[in-house]
Amino acid sequence: MAKVHNYSAGPCILPQEVIKEAADAVLNFDGLDLSLLEISHRSSNFVSVVEEATFLVKELLEVPEGYSVCFMQGGASLGFLISAFNMIGDHKKSAYINTGTWSDKAIKEAHFVGDVEVVASSKESNFNHIPKGFDIPTDVDYLHYTSNNTIFGTQFKEIPSTSVPLVCDMSSDIFSKKVDISKFDLIYAGAQKNMGPAGATLYIVKDEVFKRNRIKIPTMLNIETHVKKESMFNTPPVFSIYVSMLNLRHLKSIGGVEAQQKINEEKASLLYAEIDRNPLFKGVAATEDRSTMNVTFVLTDESKQAKFDELWKAANISGIKGHRSVGGYRASMYNALPVSSVQVLVDVMKALESA
Amino acid sequence: MAKVHNYSAGPCILPQEVIKEAADAVLNFDGLDLSLLEISHRSSNFVSVVEEATFLVKELLEVPEGYSVCFMQGGASLGFLISAFNMIGDHKKSAYINTGTWSDKAIKEAHFVGDVEVVASSKESNFNHIPKGFDIPTDVDYLHYTSNNTIFGTQFKEIPSTSVPLVCDMSSDIFSKKVDISKFDLIYAGAQKNMGPAGATLYIVKDEVFKRNRIKIPTMLNIETHVKKESMFNTPPVFSIYVSMLNLRHLKSIGGVEAQQKINEEKASLLYAEIDRNPLFKGVAATEDRSTMNVTFVLTDESKQAKFDELWKAANISGIKGHRSVGGYRASMYNALPVSSVQVLVDVMKALESA
Repeated sequence: MAKVHNYSAGPCILPQEVIKEAADAVLNFDGLDLSLLEISHRSSNFVSVVEEATFLVKELLEVPEGYSVCFMQGGASLGFLISAFNMIGDHKKSAYINTGTWSDKAIKEAHFVGDVEVVASSKESNFNHIPKGFDIPTDVDYLHYTSNNTIFGTQFKEIPSTSVPLVCDMSSDIFSKKVDISKFDLIYAGAQKNMGPAGATLYIVKDEVFKRNRIKIPTMLNIETHVKKESMFNTPPVFSIYVSMLNLRHLKSIGGVEAQQKINEEKASLLYAEIDRNPLFKGVAATEDRSTMNVTFVLTDESKQAKFDELWKAANISGIKGHRSVGGYRASMYNALPVSSVQVLVDVMKALESA
Repeated sequence: MAKVHNYSAGPCILPQEVIKEAADAVLNFDGLDLSLLEISHRSSNFVSVVEEATFLVKELLEVPEGYSVCFMQGGASLGFLISAFNMIGDHKKSAYINTGTWSDKAIKEAHFVGDVEVVASSKESNFNHIPKGFDIPTDVDYLHYTSNNTIFGTQFKEIPSTSVPLVCDMSSDIFSKKVDISKFDLIYAGAQKNMGPAGATLYIVKDEVFKRNRIKIPTMLNIETHVKKESMFNTPPVFSIYVSMLNLRHLKSIGGVEAQQKINEEKASLLYAEIDRNPLFKGVAATEDRSTMNVTFVLTDESKQAKFDELWKAANISGIKGHRSVGGYRASMYNALPVSSVQVLVDVMKALESA
């Protein structure tokens, strides 16, 4: 059991077994008497790591034939530009759904490669819900959305229905629940939530993308460069990929994404039930769009803040201060957070009533 | 003393103390009862790490006033594009010295942002020397060169003299010797030789660069983005920056770059002396351009190869097989390689004579 109940919004909690194995590999990797940090990325030992990580992504997410997986650098923030560069085509125009800070930043980068139409936005209500019932033009090269909004605590419960190629920034909920990959042309995700430590970025791409008319793309921003070289065009972020591989192995060992999804739903039910039951708390996000990953909530009585902060700190809870754009509290419950840690938070919320 | 004599060309050997401290932080960072891998990059504990790493770079390299230091991602391979994007200006033209594979790749990316003039090249002699005595046009926005050529084993012994802004890919010899930073407008370097593990890239930039007429640069490729946010615009490669900080602390503890330079010169003298003395071996690079970091050499009698390979493997030497573009052998002697490991290789070379 975790000594600290780690609700960090990311980089976030990882399984203890994974952390221990990672530390062991830093000291001596694969029995080579060398650290993982000081071996060639082209050594057969590390090539096997990348192959296994790639295979595990495909297996755990049931990636269909005709799709490729690779690891790159730069986080989703560089992914905003990379996705636009790789997806823009003959229309020279893209469509974006704006559901928060990260969508906003993606839209900004898309302007570097073409016209952008924001087809829906919840900006006017401080992104407290997922827009619904909007039209998506057909004269665009792709539609982009952010599946889970870490800051505001909202999450798409359904994949947007569209006839144009679909692109998704899945940084904060990939590997947390089943997803039909075949609906997407491109998925990208920074590692540092449910995949591994910061420094690697996952790309899942439909191979058809590379066959379209595309603009001239700088080598390192072209996903095809990295797919063709199996994530080894240049020196990859060795440690981050290795620990991601360990973490995906761990996910497989507990029953894969489906088993993890049940745990995540249990955690979310537990915490949202307390938020709805306890008159001292109120959820921030629209009920139907509530994220299972990031739970945003506020106190109904601000005078209780000092007491609440004292209680959760005493319970060894870490990282639940809300983002400055929302205020209040944010409990990030990524895959590795145990149900028992959520129970501790719920107990603290109950204790505040009688305090 | 190293159990394995690790001559890996990169990622490469790091000091044992640094590796041990890195493993400790993976288990429990800063006494927080949390792994370095699962804490927020915006926690005060990690912000201190980035500040110390930045400070150590400035201190160890004697970075003058008017320069900024930041850490980014993507390696030098993305640096090829980033440097071009940030440096191209009114001339819409740049000058490059082509001294090998990495220069070649830098030239390719520079074509994305403007015209490129290759002012000198040693390509016709398989990059076995550093070109000299060439003219540098003045109607270019910058001159770019690669200070050390890992594959071919050549190194600039002097900084090219020019009136135009100077840009250098210093990936494989930064922190190995004293450098007059004031001669440069921009220096970039992948971490995985003398700075730390793969995943972080160092940029040292003259602040004047940001005041010039520049083209519109995507957010993540604009060095100013990362300088302004002190390497924290987005989630940085936490682990790689942390271990780099530990390694720079270590470098300071042994006397800094000047002390390290003496050790590197001692190692280079020892190995090159044996190459020149022993009739069974021949150096690949022109004598006056020999790299202190990567020593390329071949056997004069190919029939001795099996025996030599047997001898160095038996001596627990790792990573001296030459790159396919050069053949023979390459002994990479980055900062952390001890003199004693070089002595073991020299002893093996001597043993071959009497074998």
